[in-house]
Amino acid sequence: MIGMRLVEWDDIERAAGHLKDVALCTPLLAAPWAGPDLWLKPENLQPIGAFKIRGAYNAMACMSAEARARGVVTHSSGNHGRALAYAARLFGVPATIVMPVGSPRIKIDAVRALGAEVVMVPPAERLPSMLAIVEERGMSPVPPFDHLDVIAGQGTIAAEILSQMPDVEVILVPVGGGGLASGVSAGIKSRRPEIRVIGVEPEFAAETQAGLRGGELRHWSTADTYRTMADGVRTAPSPLTFAHLQAYLDDIVTVTEEQIGSAVGYLGRDGHLVVEPSGALGVAAYRYRRDALPAGRTVAVLTGGNLDPERFAELIVAPPLP
Amino acid sequence: MIGMRLVEWDDIERAAGHLKDVALCTPLLAAPWAGPDLWLKPENLQPIGAFKIRGAYNAMACMSAEARARGVVTHSSGNHGRALAYAARLFGVPATIVMPVGSPRIKIDAVRALGAEVVMVPPAERLPSMLAIVEERGMSPVPPFDHLDVIAGQGTIAAEILSQMPDVEVILVPVGGGGLASGVSAGIKSRRPEIRVIGVEPEFAAETQAGLRGGELRHWSTADTYRTMADGVRTAPSPLTFAHLQAYLDDIVTVTEEQIGSAVGYLGRDGHLVVEPSGALGVAAYRYRRDALPAGRTVAVLTGGNLDPERFAELIVAPPLP
Repeated sequence: MIGMRLVEWDDIERAAGHLKDVALCTPLLAAPWAGPDLWLKPENLQPIGAFKIRGAYNAMACMSAEARARGVVTHSSGNHGRALAYAARLFGVPATIVMPVGSPRIKIDAVRALGAEVVMVPPAERLPSMLAIVEERGMSPVPPFDHLDVIAGQGTIAAEILSQMPDVEVILVPVGGGGLASGVSAGIKSRRPEIRVIGVEPEFAAETQAGLRGGELRHWSTADTYRTMADGVRTAPSPLTFAHLQAYLDDIVTVTEEQIGSAVGYLGRDGHLVVEPSGALGVAAYRYRRDALPAGRTVAVLTGGNLDPERFAELIVAPPLP
Repeated sequence: MIGMRLVEWDDIERAAGHLKDVALCTPLLAAPWAGPDLWLKPENLQPIGAFKIRGAYNAMACMSAEARARGVVTHSSGNHGRALAYAARLFGVPATIVMPVGSPRIKIDAVRALGAEVVMVPPAERLPSMLAIVEERGMSPVPPFDHLDVIAGQGTIAAEILSQMPDVEVILVPVGGGGLASGVSAGIKSRRPEIRVIGVEPEFAAETQAGLRGGELRHWSTADTYRTMADGVRTAPSPLTFAHLQAYLDDIVTVTEEQIGSAVGYLGRDGHLVVEPSGALGVAAYRYRRDALPAGRTVAVLTGGNLDPERFAELIVAPPLP
C-alpha cells in the first residue's frame, strides 16, 4: 500500500507519555536456565496480564473526548478485549467485546468481570460483527492491531528495552495480527537499525512468515490456524501491520506445538512465571531454534499470562523437550 | 541480649551497593484481584527464585578475601542454600549446603545444579552438622539468618520499597528464621517509623508470634512446625533476629494451611506468578485476615517461587477459599 503512514518514534514517545501511570515498565529478567544471553520482558505482569493494555489505552487516550464518550467496541480472542474493557473502565465509558467461540474461559470471564459486554461469534465473523456494532450503536472501534495508535502503544516496549539494555542485539516477538511486532520493530529500527527484531510464529499459524517470503499478505483458514494452542496468535496481519513488518521486521522463525508447551513449562518451573502459549513463543525459539536466530544479547517479550489454570497445570508438570 | 548490635541503615546502604549488579530491583505490582490497595514485591523473580540472594551475597561480599577463599557452608531448607551456592559461584569459591530431609526436590536439585555439595540430615541436626563442617574443613559459615550481614542484605528490600512507593503504609513479610523480617523492619523503622511492618506466620509454625507475645524466644518441635506446607518458614528466630523483631516488628498475624494454598492459587491465576507457599503468606493475610491488619497502602513481599511443579499444579486448579 504505497503512501501508507507507518508508526514513527514520535508516536511511540507520545504513547509512552499516556501510559506512564497505566502500564508497568516491566523489568528485564535474566534467564540463566535457558541460556547465558537471554532476558525476558514479562508483560504477563501488566495489570490485565498482557501487553495489550499499552495499545488499547493509548488508542483511547488519542481519541477525541466525544468519540470516547460514545463507548468503545472491539473484536479479540481475549487479551485485547480485556485490555480495552480495562481502559474503558479507567475512562468511565462502556465497552463491548466481540469474542470468537473457542476463546479460553479465563479470558472471557476476565472481560465480563471488568463490566464489559461480551458477544460470542464464530471466529470468521469477528470483524463483521464488530463493524455491525459500530454502525448500529455508534460505538468507537478500537481494533486489536489494525490501528496506528494501537501499534504505537505496543511500540513503547521497544523504548523501554532500549533504555533498560542499550547493548541489546536481538529482540524476539510473537506475531499474530502483528501489532506488537509492528510497534516494536518500527521503534527499534527508527533508533537502532542494527538491532535485529525477529518474529516468532507457531508452525500451525505461520501465515506471516509465508506472506513476507512471498511478498504479499496470506490468510490461512481458521481450521488450520486454530490447531495451535497459542490462541493469541491465530490471526493474520492487516495491510497496515503487514506494511510495518515488511518494512522493519528482520525475519520470522517458527516453532512446533511441543516446543511451545515445553517453553511454558520451563517458564513456570525455572522462571516462576505463568505465561500463556502465545507468550512463550520467543523462549521456544531461543531454546529450540537457536540455529535460526542471530547470536547476541537477546530479549524475548513474554506477551501475556492468561490461560486456563488446568492447561497451565498440565504444561508445568509435563516432561520438557530436551 | 543487652548490648547486641542491630542492623542500621548504613549497613543496608552498604549492602545495596554490593547487590547493585547481582539482585534485581523487583517492581511493585498492583493486585486489583486481591484488593484496591495491595502491591506485590515479587522476589520469586530473583535469579535464584528468592530474596535470599540478597543476604547470602552481601555476607560473602563483606567477608575478608581470605575467609571467602576457604569456601562457604550453610544449613538451609533450600532457598538460602541455593542463594549461597549461586553467590559462591559468582565469587569462584566452593560451597557446601546442609539440607534437612523433606526439602522440596526442586530446591535440592537447584543447589546441586549450581555446583555446590549437598549434605542431607534430619531437620534437628542442621546447625550441628554445619558447625562440624566449619570445624573439620575450615569453611566459612554463612548462616541463613543469624548474621548481621545477611540481615542487612535482606533489608535492601525496605530501601527499594521506600524509593518505589514513598507513601506505603503497611508492609507484610513472612517470618521463619526472621532474617527478612529483621532486615525489613530495621530498615523501615530507622527511616519511617510510622510505617507498620507486620509479620505473617502459618498457624502451624507461629513460634515467633508466641515468643513476641510471651517476651522470650520459643522453639516448637519440628513435628509441629513441619505440618505447614510453607517449608521456608518452619524454623524459629535466633537470639539476634528475635532481638530485631522485638525492637522493630509491629505485630504478627497467622494464617491457616487452606488460606496459604488458596493464596498460591490466586497468585498463579490472577497474578501470573509461581510463588511457593512461604512466599504467599502476605497475600493470604491480606485476603483472609484483613480484620487483623492495619488499613492503608500495603506491600506484600513474595519471598520465593521454588516449589515442586506437581504441588503448584494442584494449588492452581484447586477451588479458592471464598
